This record gives sequence, structure tokens and C-alpha cells, in this order.
Amino acid sequence: MSNDRDIAMKGAGYYSKSTAGARDVIENGLPMILKAVDAIEQPDGSQTFTMADMGCADGGTSIGMVGEALGAIRKKWPRRPIQMVYSDLPRNDFSQLFQIVHGQTDIESYYGDIDNLYVYASATSFHDAIFPPESLGIGFSATASHYISKNPCTISDHVHMVGASGDEREAYVEQGRKDWETFLVRRTAELSSQGRLVLFNFGIDEEGRYLGNTGGINMFDTFNECWREQLDAGNITTEEYLNTNFQQCYRTVDQFTAPLSDESNPVFRAGLRLEHVESKVVRCPYEREFTEGHGDADRFAREYIPTLRSWSEVAFASALSPERPVEERVSIIDNFYGAYEERVRQAPQGHAMDYVHIYLILRKE
Amino acid sequence: MSNDRDIAMKGAGYYSKSTAGARDVIENGLPMILKAVDAIEQPDGSQTFTMADMGCADGGTSIGMVGEALGAIRKKWPRRPIQMVYSDLPRNDFSQLFQIVHGQTDIESYYGDIDNLYVYASATSFHDAIFPPESLGIGFSATASHYISKNPCTISDHVHMVGASGDEREAYVEQGRKDWETFLVRRTAELSSQGRLVLFNFGIDEEGRYLGNTGGINMFDTFNECWREQLDAGNITTEEYLNTNFQQCYRTVDQFTAPLSDESNPVFRAGLRLEHVESKVVRCPYEREFTEGHGDADRFAREYIPTLRSWSEVAFASALSPERPVEERVSIIDNFYGAYEERVRQAPQGHAMDYVHIYLILRKE
Repeated sequence: MSNDRDIAMKGAGYYSKSTAGARDVIENGLPMILKAVDAIEQPDGSQTFTMADMGCADGGTSIGMVGEALGAIRKKWPRRPIQMVYSDLPRNDFSQLFQIVHGQTDIESYYGDIDNLYVYASATSFHDAIFPPESLGIGFSATASHYISKNPCTISDHVHMVGASGDEREAYVEQGRKDWETFLVRRTAELSSQGRLVLFNFGIDEEGRYLGNTGGINMFDTFNECWREQLDAGNITTEEYLNTNFQQCYRTVDQFTAPLSDESNPVFRAGLRLEHVESKVVRCPYEREFTEGHGDADRFAREYIPTLRSWSEVAFASALSPERPVEERVSIIDNFYGAYEERVRQAPQGHAMDYVHIYLILRKE
Repeated sequence: MSNDRDIAMKGAGYYSKSTAGARDVIENGLPMILKAVDAIEQPDGSQTFTMADMGCADGGTSIGMVGEALGAIRKKWPRRPIQMVYSDLPRNDFSQLFQIVHGQTDIESYYGDIDNLYVYASATSFHDAIFPPESLGIGFSATASHYISKNPCTISDHVHMVGASGDEREAYVEQGRKDWETFLVRRTAELSSQGRLVLFNFGIDEEGRYLGNTGGINMFDTFNECWREQLDAGNITTEEYLNTNFQQCYRTVDQFTAPLSDESNPVFRAGLRLEHVESKVVRCPYEREFTEGHGDADRFAREYIPTLRSWSEVAFASALSPERPVEERVSIIDNFYGAYEERVRQAPQGHAMDYVHIYLILRKE
């Protein structure tokens, strides 16, 4: 997952280590990346080949995949210089990213295995132009495009657009549509001819499933219920509850592919084509270990909550009044996740943060 | 100054704010940069123009100059996409750098004023290849190239090579020679034809002056004396004293220019030519305020020491045994700078960290 928002995340590999599932999502998509590399019909030579990981966080979840992809790129084009560009927002921990990529942590890195390779970072939002025109060979992004450029409205009775209804739901869908179109228009301008986008997006699959909602207990509903408990107990105000809205939109498969099939759409007109689409569910590694392995509800609860907290905490913490002393805010957030953890401990069955992704390969004509 | 070493520096603009003099050094060199841009005979078009700031730290000291240079580049080539690449080592605070460049701090930034501009960071050491061959238009670096790739030996009776003698001095000079040649060979390969390097290097001028040694009290000798006091008082061990060696080499004007005039040198043979060289002394802003302004020795001492400490602390702190508890190490370092501060307070005359730079403009044939 990415922190393509104005937040600081916990550094020192915390993010990668608590998101083993996010790495599984990427590793599962490796054949698609290699297929995309293979399909690019461009000659070898002195022209630089650029690959990007947009919404990279600390780069730890993608490092295995990126290494494989760069190896395939080098093999296909022995002479071309390769640029690998990692992007995220300015408050991302880029120092941690570089330490991981340059092999200064205990995470294995491809750096040094591939010659004529140049690694860079960008802090330009993927809603804006990150690269010069026609300079991008492969644009990769995993679990990032659901971050929208702004919240179009507050959600009166939920914390996430998947639980919103009526006009509120519509407003999020529309914001998601606009941001997705902008993302694709920007990337299409940046892609070289024959370049590919390989995008693994959080979304809603054909069966209506999405992150943490795959048949068991709905994770976002649980977030909302636990947060409402904080409201009902008088720990947070109504205003704070209303201001708690994940700056995200989960799109359906149709919403993802519409700009690529509608011939009047600016994305289609710019030359971007759908090459492959599929939905995949990656099972929650913590739930699997619990169900198929240790069976210890306490351990499951203790291990499971941090993976939720790693990416969701900012949505709750940033909604709290800045007039509250910091310790008070910390205490509210600790209580909130503590209550969620206690629910899991008391009745673990059905809790699972299964990942639901819409995998896309797109080609520039 | 740069932290082109394996160190973490204090973030949140601390570095830029305490190094007003370093910014003056760059601002004084602005006409040289603009002259270099003006001299580059390359056509306008779709080919990307790349500028680099190597050893950038948080980017705050160079941001005014970089903005002016990018403005001149845009004016000269209205159509070319521009890449601005900041480089330093992985532990540098790249998040702070990006926040400054993207206008998220109180420091004014050029970002948004120049169209078709793409900003990146690199964490590759300037001793290695940072850019693809023939892709660099202007390579800028200020107050960074004195960091050498390793210490060739310990210095028995001083903390810096400027105070070393005999074989020890020779070993540092030789390491400095090799690293400078490598730096120039790397950059020459990266420069496009007509590209320029604009380098403001700490060094030793024609009169033997260097940083903190311009006629008054020698700053590095004072460092050494205060550190020896710690040794004599039993606060540090002989081993720790011996291990305290700034990983730096100050080169003379002749040493800087030798690879550009010796036709058998790999740098000359690669096509790099000397276009301009001059030495400049930039007066210590703290000493000037004291001498010409407030005249308050206590204030001078309090304001002066942090600017020394901002870049020198790592050399002393990293020499202390890791077996000492952290608090003990902090206490030794505090005592050390406290003693230096007290010297300044008691007898302020002659203390000054005047900057001595060798300014170079180099051209690739």
C-alpha cells in the first residue's frame, strides 16, 4: 500500500514488515510484469529505459518484483541504460527507501546485480506529471491508485466510501472517476510508444468483494462500529466522527476499464489500450496462520491489528481536533484499536483482511 | 555543505538555517552558473535537459540558485523538458529535501514557476555513476567534494588532514587525488557534449587559507586542542582520539586543476576542459555580526558553535566507543563543544569560520 497522502508513516521497515500480504499481492503479479516487459517492442541501443514504482512507500514490498523485472529488462536490452524511479509523496520516508534499495538494511536488494542502472526517487503526486513526455517504459503501481486527490464530501454514517450511500456515495464515485482518468491521461503522455502500465489496484470485484470484505466480517464496518463506540462513549465529538473519511475510492472493474473502451474518452484518444484485466483475492496471511496453523485467538488478535493500523491510523488520527493534547489523541487511537483487537480476540472467526485487487495491463499504441 | 558520508543529520531545516554562510557561497557563485548555462551550445527540442545538485543535503542552501538556473535554462530552451536531480547519501533526509522543493515549508521554492520540470533525488554516492552516459547538462556541487571515499590512515596528532604531516599527510593527499580523478571521470562520462560542471569546492587557496583558517585562530587546530583536552582529562581514550579523523581532503588549486591540464590524465583524455578557476573567501556571517554589529561575546559564542557543530559533530561522535552508553557519548560531545564555546566567549577575537572555496567551471568537449 502507498501513503500517497500528506502523512508521515512509521519508518525503519515497519511498513514492509507489517504488510506481508501487500508483498504477496505484488509477487503474485510478477508473471504479468514479465509478460509486459516481454511484449514491449522497442530496439536495444543507447536510449534509456525507465521503469517506475508509483506509490512505493519504503520500497520493501516491491523489491523482489522490481529486481526480477529489471533483470528481464537488462536481459532483453543488454545495452540500454536503465532508470528505476520510485515515487511517493514528500513526507514518505525516502531515506528508508534508499537504504533498502542500496542494500543498507537486512532486506535483500537487486542493487549491484544489474549494470548500467540508475535509481531515483520522485515526490510528485501521481495525480500530476512525474516524467517527461514519452520517456516511461514500464509504469508499475500497486495498492496506491485508490488514494484520491481530495475528499469530495464527508460521509454522514460511515468512515469509508464503501459504506456510504446516496449522494455521498455518488460524490466519491465521481471523484474516483475523475482522478482515475487524470492518472491515466498523465501516464499515457509519459509512456513511450509500446510502453506498458502494470497496475494492481484496490477495487471491488465482480462479486462485490473488496479489502476486508470477502464473505466474513466486514473490516470497514468494524472500523466504523468501533469508531462510533468512541463517539457514543463521548471520547470523540460528532464533528470528529464526521471528519473521519478515508481519502480513498474503491472502483469496480467496469469503472477501471471504462476509459479504455469508450472511444471518446481522453484516455482512449491518447492511445492507451486495455491488454489484460483480472480480479484476484489474496488471502490474509494472519487469518490463514490462525485458521490453518496456531489457532491461538490472542496471538491472531495481536498480530492482525498492526497490519490494519499501519495504513488506517492516519484516517482516524487526522480527524481528531488539533486542540486536543497529543497524549489525549494517542490515547483515543490506542483505545480504538484496542477495542478492535478485543473483538478479534473474543470472536476471531470471520475476521480477515483479504486483499482484493483489480490487475490491469495497459499498452500505449 | 554536504553529508556525503554515512551519517544522519538533524532534519527539519536545521541544516539550512545554521549554514547561512554556505548559502552565501552558492549565491556568490550564481553568475558562474548562469554563465555556464549561457555557454552551452545545444539546440532546443524534445531532448530532456538534466541539471544536478550533488551533495545537496536538504536542498535549502541551493534553492535560490537552482531556481535562477532553472529559469535561465527554461528561457534558453523553451521546449526541452527539464530534470532536476538532487543527490546525497541514503541516510540524508530526502523527505525534508522534497518538502522544501515542493514548497511545503516556509522556504520559498521555484517549484511551480517552471513548466515541464521534473524533480528527482538520487542516493548514489558521487564516487559512483549517478546518471546514464551523456545525459547530464549541468552538474553542480557545492562544498561536497572534500568528502573522500575512505580514510587512508589515522592521523596521530590531529583530527583533520590539514593538521597532519609526513606520510599521514601524503596518504590523505593521495586519497584525495584518486577520489577527485574518479569524481571527474564519472561526471565526464555522464555529461552531454557541451555540458558543464560548476563546482564550488572546499580547498586550500594560493595563500594557504582554508575553512576556518584565514589569518586568525585556526578552527581545526582548536577542534584538535579541545579534543585533546578531553583525552588529557581522561574523558576519552587514546584509541578514540586516534580514531577521530574527518573523512575529508582539502585540495590545493593545483591539485584541483592537474587532471585538466595533464594531457595523459584520464580526465583530460575523456574530454573535460578547464574553463574557469578562482578562489574566493566568504566571510563568516557570525563573526561579522559580532565584529561589525552587536559586539556581544556571549551571543557570538552561542550562535557560532552550532554552525561548526552542524557538520563536524559526526566526526567526533562516531569515534567514540560504541560500548559507551549513549548518554555518556552525548555528554562527552556536549562537553567538547561547550569547551570550544567557552574559549570563544572568553577571547572571541580571531574566531571565524570563513569559507574558502575553489570555484571551477569545466566543459565537456
